[in-house]
Amino acid sequence: MQSESRSKSKELYQVSTDQRERLAMSVERLDQSSHKIRERDLGQTFDSNITLPHYEKSPKKGQAVLFVGDLSYADNHLNHDNNRWDSWGRFSERSTAYQPWIWTTGNHELDFAPEIVKLLAPSMEKINRLSHSRIGTVLLTELQAAQNHFGKYTPQYSWLEEEFPKLNRTETPWLIVLNNSPWYNSYDYHYMEGETMRVMYEPWFVKNIVDVVFSGHVHTYERSERISNIAYTVVNGICSPVKDQSAPVYITIGDGGNIEGLATKMTEPQPKYSAYREASFGHAIFSIKNRTHAHYAWHRNQDGYAVEADTMWFSNRFWHPVNDSPSSDS
Amino acid sequence: MQSESRSKSKELYQVSTDQRERLAMSVERLDQSSHKIRERDLGQTFDSNITLPHYEKSPKKGQAVLFVGDLSYADNHLNHDNNRWDSWGRFSERSTAYQPWIWTTGNHELDFAPEIVKLLAPSMEKINRLSHSRIGTVLLTELQAAQNHFGKYTPQYSWLEEEFPKLNRTETPWLIVLNNSPWYNSYDYHYMEGETMRVMYEPWFVKNIVDVVFSGHVHTYERSERISNIAYTVVNGICSPVKDQSAPVYITIGDGGNIEGLATKMTEPQPKYSAYREASFGHAIFSIKNRTHAHYAWHRNQDGYAVEADTMWFSNRFWHPVNDSPSSDS
Repeated sequence: MQSESRSKSKELYQVSTDQRERLAMSVERLDQSSHKIRERDLGQTFDSNITLPHYEKSPKKGQAVLFVGDLSYADNHLNHDNNRWDSWGRFSERSTAYQPWIWTTGNHELDFAPEIVKLLAPSMEKINRLSHSRIGTVLLTELQAAQNHFGKYTPQYSWLEEEFPKLNRTETPWLIVLNNSPWYNSYDYHYMEGETMRVMYEPWFVKNIVDVVFSGHVHTYERSERISNIAYTVVNGICSPVKDQSAPVYITIGDGGNIEGLATKMTEPQPKYSAYREASFGHAIFSIKNRTHAHYAWHRNQDGYAVEADTMWFSNRFWHPVNDSPSSDS
Repeated sequence: MQSESRSKSKELYQVSTDQRERLAMSVERLDQSSHKIRERDLGQTFDSNITLPHYEKSPKKGQAVLFVGDLSYADNHLNHDNNRWDSWGRFSERSTAYQPWIWTTGNHELDFAPEIVKLLAPSMEKINRLSHSRIGTVLLTELQAAQNHFGKYTPQYSWLEEEFPKLNRTETPWLIVLNNSPWYNSYDYHYMEGETMRVMYEPWFVKNIVDVVFSGHVHTYERSERISNIAYTVVNGICSPVKDQSAPVYITIGDGGNIEGLATKMTEPQPKYSAYREASFGHAIFSIKNRTHAHYAWHRNQDGYAVEADTMWFSNRFWHPVNDSPSSDS
């Protein structure tokens, strides 16, 4: 493990165990090298070695790690250096050997260098898959906006269209979606980049009452109200996000750190759909208590574990769809 | 050529020659089998044999054929019968042997049956390409919403981003985009299906003052005003198409015919952005006169060639960007 690291990034979700539910889940994102560093230093090791022990030392043990995209950053290195996949595999093995890591793919899993990929990286194909993951009471749906086709007539579109009606909220009361590029993001960085997928997929999320959507991509933190923006018909002028208790909460948890610092520039004023936003390194814990309640808390890196900078009690949208916003105006 | 055809579809554009400009161009769409016919009859031959001679007999000779997607419909047949590609090739050869056919891809070129494609259709790869086509004074940009990735970080997105700044409107005064799924379509069929691409790509079309966009997919006819809808910021509520002289005219020319008939159901009332719409079989002729003017006319199948059901004199957006709408309220 080299010490010449240039970046760090961390997005940590964890669902603690309790006496009623043995489900525990953590979501962790390790952006192991900077977007802008092109040098051949192994940026993935030093700061990841801060992030991973940080998760391992947490008193709230997870049963699985959810990874919202951007794995090894091999694509950021000269000739898409696929040795980065090996080093990333060795690095993460300390955790992956003992609990499942479940990921969606981000833009750094886009490895459109066919002349290189054919020679070096047939393994890239393995992450290009469409599936749900079930962990205890949670059904996870991993979307792939960057890695995969998502327009109508594509496999991903058809797959989602066919899978949603199969949902069984008795078996899996909680429905969580993982997506790389956030749909509701009020930071300047990657602003509105998720629109192209939102306008097509959002009605399904509301109809099928997704509980929460976790996204990364933007290196900061934000939690939305339960809002939807699906009434638009091109000509009706109805295109503003509105409070909607059938809609998920959208959480952007790209609050890792890289050498350039956080994505701190926000659009002003803070949109009404944005319940909480703060540019800080941190991680979040999502603790499912039973089929109706889950406790969520975001922890800043500079605080101790006991400090909860942003919290929310989630009420399951299928079993207990009450207004669960902690915002005063809700 | 079998006579058991079940469908026909035709979209015919032609730019006539004149003394100043030898450029001639025609756009033709041959939907050679029905969406819903699954029988093994060769639906592609009979009605295509009406369409192609119709084009060949036109007194206004074209120099190239532009094809806005949906070529052989091989995917609609049992086991994605790739013999349909061969029969389509033999059928179209009478024209393709003598003038270039330039196409973008439609949803019927999506052949996501990898287990079949690997065995039978390596040739499918050949149409999955990103390029412009230059014909005389026209630069054609063929987009691929269905066939190809189009999100940010994808090859198509990067390619367009890099190509637009290279535009030289002295060399190619006319900038025409071909796209399968229309962005401005006020018929119920495929309504708003193009939104996912529009929200991402439309600002580029306005910035780079595209003259006209031809789309297919919807089996009817519609011409838009010069409008744009690019001011939206999620929170500003500005999401209605507005008149914009830097924007292209969007023409949906999917007015072929299949056994189920035309797409006749329209959204009501007719949106302001829609300049003309009529459900009829037909073809259109786009006659470029010089670098500033082009004459456009839509001809219904039931009329003679002299009858122009919808007409517009196009003023080139770069060289002569005056208001060229024939609508009374413009």
